[in-house]
Amino acid sequence: QGDAAAGKAKSAICAACHGANGKATIATYPNLAGQNYDYIVYALNAYKSGARSGGQAAIMQAQAAKLSAEDIANLAAYFSGL
Amino acid sequence: QGDAAAGKAKSAICAACHGANGKATIATYPNLAGQNYDYIVYALNAYKSGARSGGQAAIMQAQAAKLSAEDIANLAAYFSGL
Repeated sequence: QGDAAAGKAKSAICAACHGANGKATIATYPNLAGQNYDYIVYALNAYKSGARSGGQAAIMQAQAAKLSAEDIANLAAYFSGL
Repeated sequence: QGDAAAGKAKSAICAACHGANGKATIATYPNLAGQNYDYIVYALNAYKSGARSGGQAAIMQAQAAKLSAEDIANLAAYFSGL
């Protein structure tokens, strides 16, 4: 499992759409607070690999492309713990 | 906005993976409890249209294909209200 504190530090960019507390600022974007750790890791990897595509995925593909596996684990730990 | 009671009645199939209370039974599947209404509608329509594809999307495309716009609104009302 990742490091939630490191995930919080990394999450500044995410907050723009997903909210400072993991509650999305824009209604068509998902809340992340309390989401499943494994699902967050799955989704970020799917965006990073391009496996998840279509619709709003392009936004997340660009964001996920910059994330390391460690970043992904830390972000998942942070948001799943909210 | 949809009808949460009608959504609950329709949600029996969803519970198999997303849990009877919207907390996913399988860690790589998303929780739906308290998710944004508009995001749920967006995601179900993206699966229904095939706009969202790749990875686990195939499972949801099959499920969403059977849903009417009214079903989608009702399910979104139900899960967002949990």
